[in-house]
Amino acid sequence: MTFTNAYAAHQPKDQVKPFKIERRTIGKEDVQIDIEYCGVCHTDLHFVNNDWGMTQYPVVPGHEIVGKVSAVGDSVNKFKVGELAAIGCMVNSCGVCSSCTQGMEQYCQSGFVGTYNHPTEDPGGLTFGGYSKRIVADESFILSVPENLDLKGTAPLLCAGITTYSPLKRWNAGPKMKVGIVGLGGLGHMGVKFSNALGAHTVMITSSESKGEDAKKLGADEVILSTDTVSRNKHNGQFDFILNTIPVKHSLDPYFDLLKIDGTMCVVGAPELFNVNAGQLVFGRKTLAGSLIGGIKETQEMLDFCSVNDIVSEVEMLQMEEINIAYERMVKSDVKYRFVIDMNSLN
Amino acid sequence: MTFTNAYAAHQPKDQVKPFKIERRTIGKEDVQIDIEYCGVCHTDLHFVNNDWGMTQYPVVPGHEIVGKVSAVGDSVNKFKVGELAAIGCMVNSCGVCSSCTQGMEQYCQSGFVGTYNHPTEDPGGLTFGGYSKRIVADESFILSVPENLDLKGTAPLLCAGITTYSPLKRWNAGPKMKVGIVGLGGLGHMGVKFSNALGAHTVMITSSESKGEDAKKLGADEVILSTDTVSRNKHNGQFDFILNTIPVKHSLDPYFDLLKIDGTMCVVGAPELFNVNAGQLVFGRKTLAGSLIGGIKETQEMLDFCSVNDIVSEVEMLQMEEINIAYERMVKSDVKYRFVIDMNSLN
Repeated sequence: MTFTNAYAAHQPKDQVKPFKIERRTIGKEDVQIDIEYCGVCHTDLHFVNNDWGMTQYPVVPGHEIVGKVSAVGDSVNKFKVGELAAIGCMVNSCGVCSSCTQGMEQYCQSGFVGTYNHPTEDPGGLTFGGYSKRIVADESFILSVPENLDLKGTAPLLCAGITTYSPLKRWNAGPKMKVGIVGLGGLGHMGVKFSNALGAHTVMITSSESKGEDAKKLGADEVILSTDTVSRNKHNGQFDFILNTIPVKHSLDPYFDLLKIDGTMCVVGAPELFNVNAGQLVFGRKTLAGSLIGGIKETQEMLDFCSVNDIVSEVEMLQMEEINIAYERMVKSDVKYRFVIDMNSLN
Repeated sequence: MTFTNAYAAHQPKDQVKPFKIERRTIGKEDVQIDIEYCGVCHTDLHFVNNDWGMTQYPVVPGHEIVGKVSAVGDSVNKFKVGELAAIGCMVNSCGVCSSCTQGMEQYCQSGFVGTYNHPTEDPGGLTFGGYSKRIVADESFILSVPENLDLKGTAPLLCAGITTYSPLKRWNAGPKMKVGIVGLGGLGHMGVKFSNALGAHTVMITSSESKGEDAKKLGADEVILSTDTVSRNKHNGQFDFILNTIPVKHSLDPYFDLLKIDGTMCVVGAPELFNVNAGQLVFGRKTLAGSLIGGIKETQEMLDFCSVNDIVSEVEMLQMEEINIAYERMVKSDVKYRFVIDMNSLN
């Protein structure tokens, strides 16, 4: 008998296979979730391929996790068995540094505990993510999922959602603001939805005409074709904020031109080495920023915002055994806009 | 007879020589200043050498100009003959764009009119700067110099001063803030003085121990030796704001590490192409910014702040004929901290 309660990626050429996990005992403050759906983030693939040189195999990816509470520890008071719950990119942090005490666990000064492939004292010595039947974590890192949200489309909110919501809120996206979203993938399509729901004039900036049309359906008020220099330049100096979700290195120059005086471009897609022309920043007091997911409190706020505004991610559903096909399609940006694994397919 | 009312740089190998200027007629709203002192900015040398490929010869450099009002147009009401007055980097702007109407003429959307080497309808077809006996400009671009300030040390305030004052104010340098100043030259030494006067905990970040000692005399509370990695890293994550005045391309990485979550580094010294590791911005929601001089209203505010806080620039005085020696020393950073030309030496 093969006991298969998780899917583990071992190495690029033999990416995933059934994997037996001895789960941690449910502690007093722990919540166990029976996972229903798990989103597939580009980070999963980076870990599977060890692109960042930090993967420890076996890795069980997945940090866009939704399901139902199946057990709670004695001291848990926020969750009851049977309720919908979710886990994002973090399952713990120091709790005492100035970032944590301000609700910014994502910037924990000791480093937050990642949902997968992070050293832990739990069985296996590593955290194991959402490509799995079940997950146990401290209740303070568990999110409550509003009942009215479609659960499949909720999974990607836990990473793609909060990664775009947090910077839009931080830089005050709202009425009378002109906000550009660069790139229309898992992150970008959530950026369009959130920016629109926050009341900003939302502009999709893309190299693809068809993506421009798609973005309009998602809520973009306007589209700029980034490859049409003449047309693009007419929009120079008009943007308060640009959310750049492109996942690979690229030239930032045209986007800086689009910013107003005192405008900000925030990069969320690519922690790469960029060439930045400081002159473009100097002549306009512009800023380049970065932003990482969001804190737990803000993630809950985002889920509640989604509930009120009827927002979920656009997803394509997968069976567990289709994961390698999904990875191949992701590399070609061939997904609208996020793959989500039906964890009932893991047997 | 040689009429020599200005010093013009023609080309690098024959940099400066006497030059006759037919001055513009004093219009209704014009003020004429008899120049007493003119600071020497690195930009002057860039223009003289045509480093930026935009110099139109003959160029009369100089945009740190102080002197006495010697004539005023009929409609001028802010200035009287005999009063102390100053001109910085700008002598005009469109006056109607959103930047100008918000008092940010330095970001005029039509481009401000530079004090020198800028096309104009005045005689000569170019603006001519402060290496000169006299200058005429619209009163709205003339600053009033408080009587208690040492006039020689006031000249550099018009560029080096406002260039550092403006970003320190923009990013709220003040009590309970930890502010780093990188580089101790014409800009950096003003940054130290202003940050200290604004009440921020001011830290000089320098590669030179002796500059560290000098910075303490100028008002720095603390010094970090940037070359001592072990010691420097102890300060990581502590800075609210870093003002980077280094005038050449360099690695920004160590300075990003020094910033707190949500911290900002502002580059004012080098409009160069930098390599920016976006990961450093993402993991800490940090920002890289630029800033250019300051608006006219803010420049006057800065001069008044200097009057109240008894701040002027530290200067070395020059005769006009020593300008090439000064340029050579500037290239070697051999000046504490700004050369100022005594314009009485131009005959």
